[in-house]
Amino acid sequence: MLVLFTDFGLEGPYVGQMKAVIEREAPGVAVIDLFHDAPAHDPRAAAYLLAAYARAFERGTALLCVVDPGVGSDERAPVVLQAGGRWFVGPDNGLFDVAAAQAGAAKYWEIALPGGPVSASFHGRDVFAPAAARLARGEPPPGEARAWRSTRGWPDDLAEVVYIDRFGNGITGLRANGLGADARIAVGGRVLARAPTFAAVAEGSAFWYENANGLAEIAVNRGRADAALGLAVGTALTVED
Amino acid sequence: MLVLFTDFGLEGPYVGQMKAVIEREAPGVAVIDLFHDAPAHDPRAAAYLLAAYARAFERGTALLCVVDPGVGSDERAPVVLQAGGRWFVGPDNGLFDVAAAQAGAAKYWEIALPGGPVSASFHGRDVFAPAAARLARGEPPPGEARAWRSTRGWPDDLAEVVYIDRFGNGITGLRANGLGADARIAVGGRVLARAPTFAAVAEGSAFWYENANGLAEIAVNRGRADAALGLAVGTALTVED
Amino acid sequence: MLVLFTDFGLEGPYVGQMKAVIEREAPGVAVIDLFHDAPAHDPRAAAYLLAAYARAFERGTALLCVVDPGVGSDERAPVVLQAGGRWFVGPDNGLFDVAAAQAGAAKYWEIALPGGPVSASFHGRDVFAPAAARLARGEPPPGEARAWRSTRGWPDDLAEVVYIDRFGNGITGLRANGLGADARIAVGGRVLARAPTFAAVAEGSAFWYENANGLAEIAVNRGRADAALGLAVGTALTVED
Repeated sequence: MLVLFTDFGLEGPYVGQMKAVIEREAPGVAVIDLFHDAPAHDPRAAAYLLAAYARAFERGTALLCVVDPGVGSDERAPVVLQAGGRWFVGPDNGLFDVAAAQAGAAKYWEIALPGGPVSASFHGRDVFAPAAARLARGEPPPGEARAWRSTRGWPDDLAEVVYIDRFGNGITGLRANGLGADARIAVGGRVLARAPTFAAVAEGSAFWYENANGLAEIAVNRGRADAALGLAVGTALTVED
Repeated sequence: MLVLFTDFGLEGPYVGQMKAVIEREAPGVAVIDLFHDAPAHDPRAAAYLLAAYARAFERGTALLCVVDPGVGSDERAPVVLQAGGRWFVGPDNGLFDVAAAQAGAAKYWEIALPGGPVSASFHGRDVFAPAAARLARGEPPPGEARAWRSTRGWPDDLAEVVYIDRFGNGITGLRANGLGADARIAVGGRVLARAPTFAAVAEGSAFWYENANGLAEIAVNRGRADAALGLAVGTALTVED
Repeated sequence: MLVLFTDFGLEGPYVGQMKAVIEREAPGVAVIDLFHDAPAHDPRAAAYLLAAYARAFERGTALLCVVDPGVGSDERAPVVLQAGGRWFVGPDNGLFDVAAAQAGAAKYWEIALPGGPVSASFHGRDVFAPAAARLARGEPPPGEARAWRSTRGWPDDLAEVVYIDRFGNGITGLRANGLGADARIAVGGRVLARAPTFAAVAEGSAFWYENANGLAEIAVNRGRADAALGLAVGTALTVED
């Protein structure tokens, strides 16, 4: 199984072109679209989302991850990273830092640019997809593994909104199991209590809860939290224990 | 073949996470995305859409359907329903009432919650997807079948807009074969005649027609009916015979 | 491999219903979603996009293409076209003119309407998908091939924006290899120089570059060119050599 995590959007050509490469290089492999609306140009917010959602996949799964504002520059190397038993393929721009740090240890391989034509703007198709397809068909990454060490100093949990979903819920970079049952989250001039589920609060009420992937999420029962509380990716929160 | 009908949106993580479960539980089964922008939180409008679009699939097809504002509550049970030779898996909140009523008779099975961890907010992934995958690989639903009886009293046809498509057309809950060739639909201060096809009316003209799935649909040739007539999900219509 | 290029949008029912037909007629064939937000109702702009993006697929690939405002009318015939070694299936409304002209020569077959029920509004499902599925499983088009000759007189390159992507970049109908390294593009009151890649210009700067499919594309590094320069599909450009 090969899992996709990008900020490309589904309808335009980018995801389809990556899938065409994967189908050519690893025919018949099951491809799962996890996120294609990851925070655009924002590897830091995306890193928290990726770490939480990657955990649901079995060990050995390969994730092809592209949130890559520095594509075509020397700012970042293309890498394969192994953490928590899973493979991550994409740019070394921080996108994998949280998954690696939460796993405690990680190894990585730098990806050599392919011999054929490589565009300057679409490494997802020309560099990362071929590398991920090789992993998906069972080949180890070529070259020498190195121990991962982050130089960015990002925290393991981030007190910010990292994603707004279709329903207007704000997913945060905070793992809920690190917060007490009585912890409250202050955001947008409001202080929100924890609830076990949507149906546990009155219609129109704002609350936070542990979402289905273990992150603290801000929601309004049958309403839109983004509109009600002014949430956007990057909105800062305060936890009151 | 396993058909998905949800209000989850495609780009976020929800559909992909359901598909990962399906691929794990029923490897290689063909999964078709029918709707992922079904009327959000609105099982009533969605029920009319589902009934019309399910008919295009062959007998024996399983449809995994999630429009589920009461998820995590005791308001509704998770069920497998069999109607018109097709399987419907999802919440018993009215979403299947129209398909069952139009089929004339239906049976259902209540789904027992799985033994493993079940989130309070994402039964699509944790409850419905595993149940649908079992049907897709040919297993009958476990437990005892009961005869379906609706308690909601919804009509077989609904004189409302139930879906706005990408082009701004308004799909209604009315089956076109119940309306005469001269029937007119009053909506948004206008009275619309029936046309056989878009190209049969002048550019910019509003009309209604039998869409490719048998529902009455309101459209403007090369324009947007939603903007021109103020249509939204829930907009009421009057039929003038 | 069967490639889809439409203006249907992904989330509504249209793409899923076509895929259900393809899966029934050519079980297991890999289907790639290339574009489902091609310029709506605009075969001319779409033709330039299609010609450029089709080139990335191997000879023998079938592309199922639907941008079809005249569906259900006698304005246009349903056709299979062969150009540059690839198959194109869809309406003969100009959508294939640019691919055919750029290939230098093309053959086409008119598609007979299927014997079963055919909707007036959804030939993508009822006419084009079955024809494309037959090609994908290796059958030649039925009937007699004719030599293609365009009657529309469209240029081989179009000095207009033909697509706005998720990031706000404006893809043009101009092939970059026909423009010099010093060519400048005037648009929205600005004159833009060419850059090799996003990272080569300052944050917030507008430029044009050769995109990953060979078209000239207008962009702003870490910004939105559509907002900054007032770009939309159809916006005219001037090339200053």
